[in-house]
Amino acid sequence: MWLPGHTPLHGRSIAVIGDGPLCETVRRDAAALGLHVLDAPDADLAIVPASGELADLGPEAFALVREEGRTTAHVGGAPGALYAWFQLLREAAGGPDTSGTASATTRFAPEHDLRMLDHWDNVAVHPVMGQVERGYSGGSIFFRDGALRADLSRVERYARLLASIGINRVAINNVNVHERETHLLSEGLASVERLAGIFRPWGIRLHLSVSFAAPITLGGLGSADPLDPDVQAWWTDAVAGVYAAIPDFGGFVVKADSEGQPGPFAYGRDHADGANLLARALRPHGGIVHWRAFVYNHRQDWRDRRTDRARAAYDHFAPLDGRFDDNVIVQVKYGPLDFQVREPVSPVIPAMRRTRVALELQVTQEYTGQQRHAVYLAPQWREILDFRPFGDDGPRLAELVRGGIAAVSNVGDDRFWTGHPLAQANLYAYGRLAWDSTLDPGAILDEWAALTFGSDGSASDDEAVRRGIRHLLDDSWRTYESYTAPLGVCFMVSPHGHYGPSVDGYEYSPWGTYHFADRDGIGVDRTVATGTGYAGQYPEPWASVYESLETVPDELLLFFHHVPYTHVLHSGSTVIQHIYDTHFAGVERVRDMVAEWDGLEGRTDAALHARVSERLAEQLRSAIEWRDQINTYFLRKSGIPDERGREIY
Amino acid sequence: MWLPGHTPLHGRSIAVIGDGPLCETVRRDAAALGLHVLDAPDADLAIVPASGELADLGPEAFALVREEGRTTAHVGGAPGALYAWFQLLREAAGGPDTSGTASATTRFAPEHDLRMLDHWDNVAVHPVMGQVERGYSGGSIFFRDGALRADLSRVERYARLLASIGINRVAINNVNVHERETHLLSEGLASVERLAGIFRPWGIRLHLSVSFAAPITLGGLGSADPLDPDVQAWWTDAVAGVYAAIPDFGGFVVKADSEGQPGPFAYGRDHADGANLLARALRPHGGIVHWRAFVYNHRQDWRDRRTDRARAAYDHFAPLDGRFDDNVIVQVKYGPLDFQVREPVSPVIPAMRRTRVALELQVTQEYTGQQRHAVYLAPQWREILDFRPFGDDGPRLAELVRGGIAAVSNVGDDRFWTGHPLAQANLYAYGRLAWDSTLDPGAILDEWAALTFGSDGSASDDEAVRRGIRHLLDDSWRTYESYTAPLGVCFMVSPHGHYGPSVDGYEYSPWGTYHFADRDGIGVDRTVATGTGYAGQYPEPWASVYESLETVPDELLLFFHHVPYTHVLHSGSTVIQHIYDTHFAGVERVRDMVAEWDGLEGRTDAALHARVSERLAEQLRSAIEWRDQINTYFLRKSGIPDERGREIY
Repeated sequence: MWLPGHTPLHGRSIAVIGDGPLCETVRRDAAALGLHVLDAPDADLAIVPASGELADLGPEAFALVREEGRTTAHVGGAPGALYAWFQLLREAAGGPDTSGTASATTRFAPEHDLRMLDHWDNVAVHPVMGQVERGYSGGSIFFRDGALRADLSRVERYARLLASIGINRVAINNVNVHERETHLLSEGLASVERLAGIFRPWGIRLHLSVSFAAPITLGGLGSADPLDPDVQAWWTDAVAGVYAAIPDFGGFVVKADSEGQPGPFAYGRDHADGANLLARALRPHGGIVHWRAFVYNHRQDWRDRRTDRARAAYDHFAPLDGRFDDNVIVQVKYGPLDFQVREPVSPVIPAMRRTRVALELQVTQEYTGQQRHAVYLAPQWREILDFRPFGDDGPRLAELVRGGIAAVSNVGDDRFWTGHPLAQANLYAYGRLAWDSTLDPGAILDEWAALTFGSDGSASDDEAVRRGIRHLLDDSWRTYESYTAPLGVCFMVSPHGHYGPSVDGYEYSPWGTYHFADRDGIGVDRTVATGTGYAGQYPEPWASVYESLETVPDELLLFFHHVPYTHVLHSGSTVIQHIYDTHFAGVERVRDMVAEWDGLEGRTDAALHARVSERLAEQLRSAIEWRDQINTYFLRKSGIPDERGREIY
Repeated sequence: MWLPGHTPLHGRSIAVIGDGPLCETVRRDAAALGLHVLDAPDADLAIVPASGELADLGPEAFALVREEGRTTAHVGGAPGALYAWFQLLREAAGGPDTSGTASATTRFAPEHDLRMLDHWDNVAVHPVMGQVERGYSGGSIFFRDGALRADLSRVERYARLLASIGINRVAINNVNVHERETHLLSEGLASVERLAGIFRPWGIRLHLSVSFAAPITLGGLGSADPLDPDVQAWWTDAVAGVYAAIPDFGGFVVKADSEGQPGPFAYGRDHADGANLLARALRPHGGIVHWRAFVYNHRQDWRDRRTDRARAAYDHFAPLDGRFDDNVIVQVKYGPLDFQVREPVSPVIPAMRRTRVALELQVTQEYTGQQRHAVYLAPQWREILDFRPFGDDGPRLAELVRGGIAAVSNVGDDRFWTGHPLAQANLYAYGRLAWDSTLDPGAILDEWAALTFGSDGSASDDEAVRRGIRHLLDDSWRTYESYTAPLGVCFMVSPHGHYGPSVDGYEYSPWGTYHFADRDGIGVDRTVATGTGYAGQYPEPWASVYESLETVPDELLLFFHHVPYTHVLHSGSTVIQHIYDTHFAGVERVRDMVAEWDGLEGRTDAALHARVSERLAEQLRSAIEWRDQINTYFLRKSGIPDERGREIY
């Protein structure tokens, strides 16, 4: 991972002026990296409380002032000291020493107060989903076989890594709360307290996923009705118990009435009733509720073409705008379906201006190659964050999400933390974009590579490595898109596992994710005029843009429209020829990635190189499988041959 | 199950003349059922050693001589006494008392010496396949969580049930031999010995499935090469150990070089080398090897249309005809694929006239509704047994299988033994047909119903019940066929689980089971002229019959030919219209079954009635799902509407 045990700052002096555990964390970290930690502000580097014209900095913000070879960080509060320290490390690793340049003051402040990582870790191993649901990096770093791990040293290192990218909230357990995990609120609380103690010195508050049915399953009540005073009292007591143990506890994450999880619908209540129930128990302690908007009918009848899962979150939540308490965050997945490689941005976010909404991303690559494929997701996230729901003159999505950003983590007990070593870059980029959504994905990648592949003068401290990684990853998200489901159609993956192609895998399922391919055409008609009406959930101009075949972007064509295979895209290609062309090209691009990496042999750690090589070989095999299954499926269905006569089976 | 604790023979007298444990078993069983067991041959019923003109009866055979209201069974040996006793019980339950009619002598002798049931039970619960692989009746009756069950009373009852239908061999563990089960040959032998002791009084010898790699995994040798003297010595010793504990041990069942199981191919040897290795170790003790012919490449490339899994068993085994030792039984599944609802009969059986071949059937309903659907399989088995591979003048298949018949059992620890109570009829019918392949499936069903639903004067002893069950089950196999994969095309089931429809579920898989449907047509060209050549593996007349579109039977059309959807069947219907018609009709037939059973409410045990009702409701739901998925898939692909305008989605 990034931030290995060396830095070009080794041997320099630093002064950290301030009390409290976070400043102490910085001093300890600096000393561990070989800096001389002084009390005097005439050190090479200084971190000092902001004053004067910088006194308006928020507690997490800081300003770097460079003059005469010295850099001073003026920090708004203790967290600012932590983040300033990591900025100094970043800059030191980043190439030319900027601390010696002409005087300058640069301000740094996070865009969002809440920058969160969600873990889908189970305490007890789930018979189907395993220790970590949708985890592709081995076991949980927190739990093993039903209990807290004895050795938590990786959690300590993890907390430092997260602090270095500005993460300040972590939810430690799966949103699908099974029996054992329910008890984290009761006899399991000691484990939670212990983990909170590890995260605390790094400025990170800990959250728990809870079951809405806990008053029944844990409390022995007959109901979990949010309007039942006994239920309210039970939550009040439960929350008080948590805060007695963990005074800076962050709050709860809840997946309610979703994919089998319990929720307020059972009592004829709505999601505002449900969320506010928990919010009111948490409010006296300063806690918050992340209430997920991922609510839809997962027992849909595939025969019914009018029901549209994409509509569900908006239909459920938009009418509730304004009814959520202030300490409720409605957490919305970036797209209306489920973390697909390409979806339109969820219309729920612009629809709920009177609600604190959080954007939910997925660092773990559930639908994007499961850390067997090298897929750098920051370009996708930037597109999402840059989306302007109200058109060019309106705000970016990043400005609308007043509840911050959350994402599902991708780490585990794997030797390289993330299965695919290059998937570390996604975790890094997530934190950086959550802090500042205007950062350039390529620049983030350079930062990550510089911090990861060392500044210790080893062979890996090598411009060729950084350039190779850029080549390999820059376009990898679009490469993955090119050889998988085409033109925004989504869900052509193997059911359950979600890895590898199965064109019809979800086509006759109850999951609401269909493509409706027949011999003439493909796609989901989500227009207002003739389809499910989903396009109408957007404000203008997007409602009109998506509604019309003339204006819908090619990459989302099949998400919004059912068209003949002979439909001509804006690109000039037909749909069918586009499918063939992108799938052939995608495989060739993966071959280039393999060659690129082969060329770096000997320039990074041998074990890491071997692991990436092994993953790239699997990516190539899988990309070929995707190409051939998709192309064959559509050739058999459409009967239209490839214009260029390439091999389709 | 059949043979509840009462019989119309209650109060009659019986004499069983003969020594030994099997005669003792009969006396004990008769006494338990309330007969007066006498020593004198002037009892109402007598079982006596055959002599005179009946002296030629084999040890399992018997003749019933009826004169003046008395019935005497003349038995060729002790097993004959057992089978005669159960024939008397059957006849007593069967309706009019035939023992009072005019004098007559009727001979009974099994067609095959080996009438076997194979259990796919695991000792340790397999993480994916469970305690019983392809078991749909709860847990194993033998094992639980890694050990022999403490309470083996169900095994005792099972042994009696099997004896009553003439089964004389049982293999107790899964042919996929996992780690724990390997040890049944070593420290697990005490468990095997205990089970053998339970089966022994019922004339049943016990067999074990073994791993070909046991010399390595269990013996610690470096090889399992059948020509290696150390390996041969290891097996000789291992077998001697088994026989020291179980002197009447039956032998081994082996799945080698199949679906990941180890085998002789690893050493450049063939299956004759492998089978003879074990046979030679077993021969001094009178043991036999059942060596399965289920060998094929399960890592096939779906792009490769020339490789044909259906060819594999013949290609591997036919050239070895004559090379197997006499105590090797080559065990061949009835069709070339895998227990599908409709396949042609395997060409391996007629190809191996110099080998003892056993026919393998599947009582457990892996591909035929998994005991959630009522599917009476005896009509299918009769068709298979009646098949004349060399044409009308040649022998029936039943006459060719000199190695007897084997089948996979369907019982478990379920309250009704078989999940679906009506699936008991399949186990019953299997035993009866293994004894006499000319029995009528309908008559067997009557026998089973009479023995099951009592002769105790209760409401269930009711002609309406027997008639209802006949109505429900007689045609149920063809009904199941009608709403599932059409025209012999096979494998449109959900991968892994094998329950429910998934038309393309196996289409792009490595399993070698494809239908090649495109917008124009469907089916596998297995002709010699233009296809894989599989049709040429049959002797005449079948090679020609299957080769030609003019003569191939409709029900196997798509197994042998790829045809347009507009191809006209012998029935006069097109392929596409046949698909629509049969799928609509199949669902209607299931509705009739539901109504039929509803009409029997109150006439059988209430719990049993409720269980069957619940299963029929699921069968109807599933049949509708099959109908709609299959019809929709082919409408979308072919674009040809239903002539009758019924609803397709």
